[in-house]
Amino acid sequence: MNGAAALLGTLSANGVTTCFANPGTTEMHLVAAFEDSGVHPVLCLFEGVATGAADGYARVTGEPAATLLHLGPGLGNGWANLHNAARAHSPVLNLVGDHATRHLGLHSMLESDLRGLAGSLGGWFDRVDAAAQAPALAMAAVAATLQWPHSIATLALAADAMWTEAGAGPWPVFSAPACPEPDEHALHDACDALGPRSALVLGGRLSAGALRAAWRVSRATGSRVLLETMPAFVARGAGVPAPERIIYVPEFALAQLSELEHVVLVGAPEPVAAFAYPNVPSRLLPEGCTRHSLTRPGVDAEPALRALADCLGANERFGADSLELTSPSGALTAETLALAVAATLPEDAIIVDESNTSGIHLERALASAARHHWTGLSGAAIGYGLPTAVGAGVASGGRVLALESDGSMLYTAQALWTMAREGLDVTVVALANGRYAVLDMERRRLGAPDAESERLFDLGRPAMDLAGLARSLGVRASVATTAEELVAALSASYATPGPSFIEARLPSAI
Amino acid sequence: MNGAAALLGTLSANGVTTCFANPGTTEMHLVAAFEDSGVHPVLCLFEGVATGAADGYARVTGEPAATLLHLGPGLGNGWANLHNAARAHSPVLNLVGDHATRHLGLHSMLESDLRGLAGSLGGWFDRVDAAAQAPALAMAAVAATLQWPHSIATLALAADAMWTEAGAGPWPVFSAPACPEPDEHALHDACDALGPRSALVLGGRLSAGALRAAWRVSRATGSRVLLETMPAFVARGAGVPAPERIIYVPEFALAQLSELEHVVLVGAPEPVAAFAYPNVPSRLLPEGCTRHSLTRPGVDAEPALRALADCLGANERFGADSLELTSPSGALTAETLALAVAATLPEDAIIVDESNTSGIHLERALASAARHHWTGLSGAAIGYGLPTAVGAGVASGGRVLALESDGSMLYTAQALWTMAREGLDVTVVALANGRYAVLDMERRRLGAPDAESERLFDLGRPAMDLAGLARSLGVRASVATTAEELVAALSASYATPGPSFIEARLPSAI
Repeated sequence: MNGAAALLGTLSANGVTTCFANPGTTEMHLVAAFEDSGVHPVLCLFEGVATGAADGYARVTGEPAATLLHLGPGLGNGWANLHNAARAHSPVLNLVGDHATRHLGLHSMLESDLRGLAGSLGGWFDRVDAAAQAPALAMAAVAATLQWPHSIATLALAADAMWTEAGAGPWPVFSAPACPEPDEHALHDACDALGPRSALVLGGRLSAGALRAAWRVSRATGSRVLLETMPAFVARGAGVPAPERIIYVPEFALAQLSELEHVVLVGAPEPVAAFAYPNVPSRLLPEGCTRHSLTRPGVDAEPALRALADCLGANERFGADSLELTSPSGALTAETLALAVAATLPEDAIIVDESNTSGIHLERALASAARHHWTGLSGAAIGYGLPTAVGAGVASGGRVLALESDGSMLYTAQALWTMAREGLDVTVVALANGRYAVLDMERRRLGAPDAESERLFDLGRPAMDLAGLARSLGVRASVATTAEELVAALSASYATPGPSFIEARLPSAI
Repeated sequence: MNGAAALLGTLSANGVTTCFANPGTTEMHLVAAFEDSGVHPVLCLFEGVATGAADGYARVTGEPAATLLHLGPGLGNGWANLHNAARAHSPVLNLVGDHATRHLGLHSMLESDLRGLAGSLGGWFDRVDAAAQAPALAMAAVAATLQWPHSIATLALAADAMWTEAGAGPWPVFSAPACPEPDEHALHDACDALGPRSALVLGGRLSAGALRAAWRVSRATGSRVLLETMPAFVARGAGVPAPERIIYVPEFALAQLSELEHVVLVGAPEPVAAFAYPNVPSRLLPEGCTRHSLTRPGVDAEPALRALADCLGANERFGADSLELTSPSGALTAETLALAVAATLPEDAIIVDESNTSGIHLERALASAARHHWTGLSGAAIGYGLPTAVGAGVASGGRVLALESDGSMLYTAQALWTMAREGLDVTVVALANGRYAVLDMERRRLGAPDAESERLFDLGRPAMDLAGLARSLGVRASVATTAEELVAALSASYATPGPSFIEARLPSAI
């Protein structure tokens, strides 16, 4: 077997079975080796789609998918969604085809500083220089993604190492380390700290079980339960407690957190503002508030929360009121859009949320919707939604609802084509307001004058035909201009296999 | 004035008057400061469009445009086209909004290793930490791009430095250094080396005057004139000598260069293959061939070539035969496409060429076309064509012809919207063959089996409607399926102001 086959064989033996690929010349032997390797390639038209898809796959499964990228430009194009993946502590394994070793140093057109580029993302990096190294380094790369906390890993692959003989299997297999147990001292410290002016702050991947355990702790101690602003993957909807998220706008978050004397961080970092603003502090906890850490970000919160509930003897059962959801009617606004999404949501859907300003009412509305999972924009690099929906669709095989804003979806719209190619059950709702509306808001909060911004944040000159864009990439599409039309379009989409796209036309002012 | 106004004022005073912008929250004060700054912002929907546009602007003018990017994800999205710009020695000035300094170290969502990320591209990097530094660092950044050889420069801008008082002008102005004179010793060495088994190898930005001087040298010495495979910007067409390019496929290039005993490099690097292949050398010059360097890559070749011609007393006048171009008819193939493009090309157009495999006959056909300029894919990172055409259109105000392949245009198709928004006279011809055909070719040359590649290089499942994609982004579009239709569509496009898009449907086999 050549190095490429040995590499893919080792990945497969270690549970990596999906590769989101945008290959180039240096990856030709890898392409050939996919057949019978146990690793299924999914073609993406742009590397940012491939990396976002691997992030989505990881958020849903907790397991790594691979990406296949082409030298520095491929990794560069994938950088922004790898930033999001790194912030979500998603296990993602990048395979980056590199020149043959003898070809390096000649300054050929695509020679790239892969180590430096990968290094700017953090995470693990190594290079397969010779075929014989392929199995051990492939296994090490998988292992790097599944250390606690999970992370991204990048393995550069010399082209000649892929086409050279590497021997035969069996390939080395590693044992994934179990999630670390909560530290006894930290557990007792948290028990002591929790009380009326305290909060649990949860982050990362949060199952319904984790949220119920946090709810029990809250009932037993009088503490609040808060979610980080952009958690990686959270159970929500009917039968699941819906903790309040820390508000994105720091002025509001400061008020939200102002009474706290103790916070217990469970898989969440200290709450800080996304950006600095004149005269607004960047750290959001009030002065004198004591931080306690139960588990680090990227470490599964559920065992720690269960242990905490046990330690407190907190065993009240969560029983949510069953709320009646009604379909909205009339004009399509941010409010009626949220109600339409909540009223129609099928059970066990995965929501990928890049709705930004126009999605402001979604969180509350969806708390009463059918049981679902929700993923947030962990690294705040836009262009994450459609690619992440591809990965969530491949991973789950179930229904995915991508809530997109028009500005954001234009970064990585190529993902629509992969949805069509793979026949994924993804429903995209594009919240089209024709502006970078989040920047209108940020400009006002920063106190910057409005010179130029009226023009420069305007996505309506020329108007974009988002439904037409989706159709051009092979996805059936419709336009909704009223709440009734949106409800009908969503219902039709959920009843039909494969992807569909709904352009929801919203007012541009927020 | 605040730091943002001081920064833009300094850029304007130093001749930087265009900024291809995709702003975010950290850039709000810069957005506000554009008004009356003398720097005109051009909105791009994706950062790879902004950086490619700045590259195109630099190739046409030899002067830097700025880009405005948002932290690490913005610079990451722009990386691939900055790689191309760096390889073309284009002066490009990246302005990257960064967090306020007091906000760093908190691990907020977008905190990024800008120095490491920019460092992986090479070129100059610095950061404005305080408003008072803005003028001096802005001037230094412009100066860095215009050192010889020209290069990219990246200036990170702390958000608080932009909103803080920076004083008033006048702003510092630097004097661009003159292009270095050719070295006397190198000149005499080149004179001695040139003879029947020798060649000039030209690269970079090549004016008609440079090419005529090289032609005179060739006539006087019996040497050949060769162009690097992907020069940055070259005069071509009627009245301009058309030197042969070094062939992209190394097996053919080795034959092309096999007789050479001396090469004189003039603004070109040593010829090497783009990729390594089993049993094919990466260095393309024959063993025993002596290299002489007259000017470095990125240094203007014209003064050196004129000096060389003078030194040799080579003063024959170039007089090209005027060739009759006939419009093709019949089926649309790579050959009739090339003839259609050549027959209709208006005078003084700029051709941005990312046609890849389907463009194989263009070079020869265009040698007899109307006088034009041609830009090549210097760094081989695809997704360069449409963005570069935006920049070329903004810089020249004239007609730009972007020859695109379907696979490549899907990386940065958002550029179409900016063409429409700015009313640029860009004609896009998308050479649609429904495959990553270059990878079919590369796979065969690498001797990799065809398992998976039939499926994985197929862009036809589902079929893409490229004309529909262009329309959805505001560009009028048509489809050509015969040579006559393509001639008619090109003629109509050139007769109409603003952008237009022609999907040229070609056979998928090459």
